[in-house]
Amino acid sequence: MIRAGIIGSTGYAGAELVRLLLQHPEAEIIWYGSRSFAGQKFSDIYRNMVSLVDETLRAEDMEALSEEADVIFTATPQGLCASLVNEEILARTKLIDLSADFRLKKVEVYENWYKLAHKAPQYLEEAVYGLPELYRDRIRSARIVANPGCYTTCSILTLYPLVKEGLIEPDSIIIDAKSGTSGAGRGAKVQNLFCEVNESIKPYGVAKHRHTPEIEEQLSYAAGLDYQNGESICLNFTPHLVPMNRGILATCYAKLKEGVDKEQLAGAYQNAYAGERFIRLLGEDSFPETRWVEGSNFVDIGFTLDERTGRVIAVGALDNLVKGAAGQAVQNMNLLFGLPEDLGLRLVPVFP
Amino acid sequence: MIRAGIIGSTGYAGAELVRLLLQHPEAEIIWYGSRSFAGQKFSDIYRNMVSLVDETLRAEDMEALSEEADVIFTATPQGLCASLVNEEILARTKLIDLSADFRLKKVEVYENWYKLAHKAPQYLEEAVYGLPELYRDRIRSARIVANPGCYTTCSILTLYPLVKEGLIEPDSIIIDAKSGTSGAGRGAKVQNLFCEVNESIKPYGVAKHRHTPEIEEQLSYAAGLDYQNGESICLNFTPHLVPMNRGILATCYAKLKEGVDKEQLAGAYQNAYAGERFIRLLGEDSFPETRWVEGSNFVDIGFTLDERTGRVIAVGALDNLVKGAAGQAVQNMNLLFGLPEDLGLRLVPVFP
Amino acid sequence: MIRAGIIGSTGYAGAELVRLLLQHPEAEIIWYGSRSFAGQKFSDIYRNMVSLVDETLRAEDMEALSEEADVIFTATPQGLCASLVNEEILARTKLIDLSADFRLKKVEVYENWYKLAHKAPQYLEEAVYGLPELYRDRIRSARIVANPGCYTTCSILTLYPLVKEGLIEPDSIIIDAKSGTSGAGRGAKVQNLFCEVNESIKPYGVAKHRHTPEIEEQLSYAAGLDYQNGESICLNFTPHLVPMNRGILATCYAKLKEGVDKEQLAGAYQNAYAGERFIRLLGEDSFPETRWVEGSNFVDIGFTLDERTGRVIAVGALDNLVKGAAGQAVQNMNLLFGLPEDLGLRLVPVFP
Amino acid sequence: MIRAGIIGSTGYAGAELVRLLLQHPEAEIIWYGSRSFAGQKFSDIYRNMVSLVDETLRAEDMEALSEEADVIFTATPQGLCASLVNEEILARTKLIDLSADFRLKKVEVYENWYKLAHKAPQYLEEAVYGLPELYRDRIRSARIVANPGCYTTCSILTLYPLVKEGLIEPDSIIIDAKSGTSGAGRGAKVQNLFCEVNESIKPYGVAKHRHTPEIEEQLSYAAGLDYQNGESICLNFTPHLVPMNRGILATCYAKLKEGVDKEQLAGAYQNAYAGERFIRLLGEDSFPETRWVEGSNFVDIGFTLDERTGRVIAVGALDNLVKGAAGQAVQNMNLLFGLPEDLGLRLVPVFP
Repeated sequence: MIRAGIIGSTGYAGAELVRLLLQHPEAEIIWYGSRSFAGQKFSDIYRNMVSLVDETLRAEDMEALSEEADVIFTATPQGLCASLVNEEILARTKLIDLSADFRLKKVEVYENWYKLAHKAPQYLEEAVYGLPELYRDRIRSARIVANPGCYTTCSILTLYPLVKEGLIEPDSIIIDAKSGTSGAGRGAKVQNLFCEVNESIKPYGVAKHRHTPEIEEQLSYAAGLDYQNGESICLNFTPHLVPMNRGILATCYAKLKEGVDKEQLAGAYQNAYAGERFIRLLGEDSFPETRWVEGSNFVDIGFTLDERTGRVIAVGALDNLVKGAAGQAVQNMNLLFGLPEDLGLRLVPVFP
Repeated sequence: MIRAGIIGSTGYAGAELVRLLLQHPEAEIIWYGSRSFAGQKFSDIYRNMVSLVDETLRAEDMEALSEEADVIFTATPQGLCASLVNEEILARTKLIDLSADFRLKKVEVYENWYKLAHKAPQYLEEAVYGLPELYRDRIRSARIVANPGCYTTCSILTLYPLVKEGLIEPDSIIIDAKSGTSGAGRGAKVQNLFCEVNESIKPYGVAKHRHTPEIEEQLSYAAGLDYQNGESICLNFTPHLVPMNRGILATCYAKLKEGVDKEQLAGAYQNAYAGERFIRLLGEDSFPETRWVEGSNFVDIGFTLDERTGRVIAVGALDNLVKGAAGQAVQNMNLLFGLPEDLGLRLVPVFP
Repeated sequence: MIRAGIIGSTGYAGAELVRLLLQHPEAEIIWYGSRSFAGQKFSDIYRNMVSLVDETLRAEDMEALSEEADVIFTATPQGLCASLVNEEILARTKLIDLSADFRLKKVEVYENWYKLAHKAPQYLEEAVYGLPELYRDRIRSARIVANPGCYTTCSILTLYPLVKEGLIEPDSIIIDAKSGTSGAGRGAKVQNLFCEVNESIKPYGVAKHRHTPEIEEQLSYAAGLDYQNGESICLNFTPHLVPMNRGILATCYAKLKEGVDKEQLAGAYQNAYAGERFIRLLGEDSFPETRWVEGSNFVDIGFTLDERTGRVIAVGALDNLVKGAAGQAVQNMNLLFGLPEDLGLRLVPVFP
Repeated sequence: MIRAGIIGSTGYAGAELVRLLLQHPEAEIIWYGSRSFAGQKFSDIYRNMVSLVDETLRAEDMEALSEEADVIFTATPQGLCASLVNEEILARTKLIDLSADFRLKKVEVYENWYKLAHKAPQYLEEAVYGLPELYRDRIRSARIVANPGCYTTCSILTLYPLVKEGLIEPDSIIIDAKSGTSGAGRGAKVQNLFCEVNESIKPYGVAKHRHTPEIEEQLSYAAGLDYQNGESICLNFTPHLVPMNRGILATCYAKLKEGVDKEQLAGAYQNAYAGERFIRLLGEDSFPETRWVEGSNFVDIGFTLDERTGRVIAVGALDNLVKGAAGQAVQNMNLLFGLPEDLGLRLVPVFP
């Protein structure tokens, strides 16, 4: 039985991790952490857990936790995980960080986009980007897994095969993304009140959303660019807030290279994802909808080739709290501990 | 492995049954039935099932199905199940009917409220009302289980202990119920379009909703009345349509009998439900919300005693597609086949 | 041109008042007040007002405001208006208070339900309850109009004719009410976040919501009880939060007095409301839905007589921000200044 | 008083036209047309109109209607208006067509995208595209006004200044648009049921939505291309369905021409729209949200220049039923009859 601790269990991603781990046959949660609610019962904050979780919330003591846990999940604001991690902790336990602290390999990119000094740059090199479909083997032996963000998982997986096989012009990429409101977190902010979000759609973080460099870095690797030495894809990423609880949809546009046809596009997806348990290729002219993946760890992907404009439009969808956060973290945990990758994740999407 | 067939698998309740049975370790679905979509793939209708269900939908042939199945679920419009069932079928297979055909013991009550002639009144006596918390033992040996409706499960379980222990005036009961829109089914009706339901709440079926006599009959038994000979509780039941996908909330009012106090109320709930896996008693002055049970088989119940008016207000909540339909049907299946009652139903509520 | 000032213009009710007054031909807003946002532009807080309102928000100085304004609207938390009002102010200007400070005639009832000491009990006697359909004449000459709450306006208007004509048992009244989320205000609270409210319905304030005594007092007057000397109707009022922006629905239950028939019920509504511009009687067996009144000053009312239980179920609906707050305040302003009662209020409900 | 008739008054756009014309001081509706509901009362279909509209719905007889009306609005499916119009009708009355029949100047483009034979191509040349901000003068003397679609109004107005002043590469344009569900109409289709739309976002009509050629044609004119002789902008347009009633958001991307800076972008918008009553320029780095225009005739536009990618992201928002349909139709009517362009359209956006 894997002993798991969660720092930040009372945010939406943390609570989703609780939901998934409770249904995981080989894991048990031994530490429910929360800065804001320490001392209270978890099920008083999340009343869906009445009769399922009896534990009391504990403070954010990664040191103490590491002595009890086989794996620590940090579902906390940017900067916190980097400020707590050290060699002693890593000697005792595995770390799966759901924040952005270890996702970007270049400290200056992190500091520039997040406006934060990085407290543990010495681990950037070692940390493995936790996208199992791309880095499965490296994750297995990692000490720190940098669990990707929701927008990035969706965007990268949707575009990866096309970039990898060189079918599109790298600098023509535009990602117009849409997210449910749980992505905004559980903080008490006027802008996230029901009446402010309901019956509206808005863009935000236009041309400056922090997930941009994460997507650029990963797609640069896919394109075979020398990212460390300054080569990089540069793209537009525009997120929008949608009045729904869960779901990410990434509508991706790119100019096709001369002569690329539909078969090549379909082939690229097959080459990349055939056999992937959590990626469902809907094929040409069939598009995902967030409702079909809700509650599950699936990413659905479809595409079309627009001959009029010479562009491909590829669309991906996932549940931001599952494949975009907690589900992917469990998938990474399974890899770290040599378990079947889909253990505890054979979740059937809930509809309606 | 229990071989299960579903007649009416493409309605919302039928599709939820698919979701639950796919996650059940001791059951497999061998027949996906649908009148409207026979010949099409199930996953073309419910695209959440892509990669999970490969089967093609088949017509409503209960005769043929009974030769292959250990249990048949009918999630069909009123009247259909009664028109198909016969001795040969019942000799071969168990029947769990999610429609109203076998819920009411009196054929005249059925015909009066449903405006339908009953095609198989000879089975009314034998059929067992499929509310496990009340009829667990009888369900185990039934041939026909009449799976209760969503409003009724919620209303009966909320009021049962109070009626059973004689704490309230039986004829003072008023149930003001609220339902998510999946309860209205998947038929293409203007009144259920997004723009007609969204941003509104309305009552419907006021003083004539068909779930009324079902609640009255069951509470009459609880009160020890001689229902067969005309004694019956008579109550008000008013359903409302709420702009959300899932969930039933039943706000129940009743006059307390002279001298009844809080401890007696709390005691009645304990007496009735202590040890029940799927009933969560929130206790006094703590009330359920539908979001806390979504996706699960739980019923949450809370109450308060209003000393000013001498009334109890008891509130129950459940997910209309799970405990109000498919989950309860699986619970009944487990009883029929001697399995642990919660097998395949250890579902953690999904929030948000 | 009436010069109007609004204290508390950045709450939802205050902002709705701005919307309505901007469209009023005989009023102009000369003071946009806000404690939280003083110094900022109103249209930076409410961006629907870009190009329509250029003013900057000012602090809550009722003294100064009264020197400029013909009428002051207070759309502020309980207690504030009572703490600011005095003779000098009332000598210069009319006051329409959208808070609860002057709605209840008995100071002890106010202090008991609101848990606040009343700062200006000397005006309780004089203040007129601002429900024009009941107190039109008195409002015309008032100095202080106590604008009723949203739940209360809906509940009182729905039940008033039945109580007035003695058709129902006064102590049998149960009001099960449902509200859109704008009624909860614009404060940054976790419980009002989109993800907490969406896809759920819940009761709150069960048996202790502050609108209860306001309804009881007004219905006691209708019943001809000697409220000042302790006679009072005592009823149950249970509010619920619904995932929609606007709208109140009040489902009201009461036992009919012996022999009362449908014609008497219909007659009572006609007697009370024939000729009322803002009350739409839908008649027997036809029920209101909140979507049909959204954005307008209408109250829609329907009812049914349930012969099985001997109860009447009467249902009212209104827009909580219009007839339940700002619209009614404008209606009161029209009365105070001798204008046609519906001036600026000929709003066609917005659907969908 | 302008005598107006509406063919197709029971769709969402038709009903919105009723709402607006009821509040218009110089127009009266003399004909409520409906194929599906002829013979029924309008207020039985749209119960928000109880006490406001007493008329009965009449069949689609444009001939007869033209003898009574000064202006006819057709809010009907594609093809109907073209099949009814003739010289006699146009001699008697003005025609404002809310369908697509007269929006495209080339019959082959219409027939290719709409898969319909055009029944009145002889009027294509004469009909004036009803976008007042671009064609104000020509509209004044038109006999047929082709009222633009919702997506197109939003997309064209957002991009027009940039194309007009040659600041962007015309063939780099990508429009990612999002719409509320009222845009899908009031037809009883499963895909538009509450439970199918709620809690989801999806793209549709990818690379083949019918509004594409309309946008291309208008922007081609703006770019000074010889559209009649085959020159045309070619762009990507991808609509998405959002779980909200009203609203269009168009997120537009384009490559800037060498050396273009922010001031030029801001200047282009000023040049095009300074003084426009219904266009609100939010300026650089400030973006529209659909909630801020709901219920009004406004179009809000903001933009940013992304120096990293050399692209402009310009975003427009409007209410699809007002500026995207009925409001614009009224604006056109005002022009046709020499009235102030904003008469009856000084609508303050409704929020929340």
